[in-house]
Amino acid sequence: MAASGDVKLIGAWASPYVLRPRIALNMKSVEYEFLEEKFGQKSELLLKSNPVHKKIPVLIHGDRPVCESLIIVQYIDEAWAGGKPILPADAYDRATARFWAAYVDDKFFPSLSGFGKVQGEEAKKEMLSQVYDSLALLEGAYQTISKEKPFFGGDQIGYLDIALGSFLGWLRVTEAMSQIKLITDEKTPGLAEWAERFVADEAVKDVMPETEKLIEFAKIIFAKMKPAA
Amino acid sequence: MAASGDVKLIGAWASPYVLRPRIALNMKSVEYEFLEEKFGQKSELLLKSNPVHKKIPVLIHGDRPVCESLIIVQYIDEAWAGGKPILPADAYDRATARFWAAYVDDKFFPSLSGFGKVQGEEAKKEMLSQVYDSLALLEGAYQTISKEKPFFGGDQIGYLDIALGSFLGWLRVTEAMSQIKLITDEKTPGLAEWAERFVADEAVKDVMPETEKLIEFAKIIFAKMKPAA
Repeated sequence: MAASGDVKLIGAWASPYVLRPRIALNMKSVEYEFLEEKFGQKSELLLKSNPVHKKIPVLIHGDRPVCESLIIVQYIDEAWAGGKPILPADAYDRATARFWAAYVDDKFFPSLSGFGKVQGEEAKKEMLSQVYDSLALLEGAYQTISKEKPFFGGDQIGYLDIALGSFLGWLRVTEAMSQIKLITDEKTPGLAEWAERFVADEAVKDVMPETEKLIEFAKIIFAKMKPAA
Repeated sequence: MAASGDVKLIGAWASPYVLRPRIALNMKSVEYEFLEEKFGQKSELLLKSNPVHKKIPVLIHGDRPVCESLIIVQYIDEAWAGGKPILPADAYDRATARFWAAYVDDKFFPSLSGFGKVQGEEAKKEMLSQVYDSLALLEGAYQTISKEKPFFGGDQIGYLDIALGSFLGWLRVTEAMSQIKLITDEKTPGLAEWAERFVADEAVKDVMPETEKLIEFAKIIFAKMKPAA
């Protein structure tokens, strides 16, 4: 166990963004206290720790808060530099990992979450095509970056694995609820195998929410979001 | 002059995002070829170098492209590690700089650019109040982070100085065209002095576009954007 000081993580079990620092902390063997936020509420500690965005996750290391999931993951990599590396060592590989991680947040997940929410056949079809386009780009990136190794990070998971892999739970929920397979052996064979390996990884398997449990949660959320008849 | 290999930057003189890598390259004393994109067009080299977003800036180091302005700045800091440091050395300070740089891109600049574009008195007032709120937060961040030193980065400009400072030209255009002062000695005294120091910095002054020239450019752009009568 790495010497960790006093580490707390404010989060919620179902949040893909919260999963990121959890995986990173596991990779570094850092013990931490997980402070679960109640759904639809914001604790005083959260408001005090992230007054700008008021969002989870927040990592509290000693008494200092770090906000924004990918910034937290980079912080964990740098603050516990002795553990397994998360970002690649090479400057160009780091830039590439950061580029695709930003793509995942700015383009891929918005299309996935849009597909999950949008109403109407035409709109659904349009969003689905965006999801497939994003996944095709990510498949290409995987083929290039992994260089036939099991992960984006090479032999072990790394920054981009965490960035994309954290959404696999909600991707599976979206697949289950729409009954449309998004990551397939035909269209995205590399990602299909990568996804299996990622969720089985030592640092991931105990914190990745079960799809069934996420589906139950999604049904409750979506029911609350629907306008009253 | 640092040994730089073959460095090119695809950009445009008026783009605040392009200014970022230019300042970073200046800080590292890296010579580069500046490839100016024609306004409203996209060169073959740009499309080939940034096929995902098709956007400037793109840094080409040797034959490898790096995209996204803040990712490029981090890359420059890491690839020419021997020059002046851009990111802070301490992990927590790095996380803080990354947090506020993301805030600048996600919240501050959208409000500034929204204020510049929006029509109607009520909407303008609403956007202006968002700009002031953002600047008040950034003033607070400046007071905390700079610790009474001249820059966010301390005695020298750094990552967050570049992230925010790159927008000063367009901020001044917005001030001139709206005839409303946004950064003021009363409301944001720290930022007001910081802005003067930033634009006068050795690495900045020769690449920061003149406000008058930007205003001329803005008038042409806005005229093109207006719907035909």
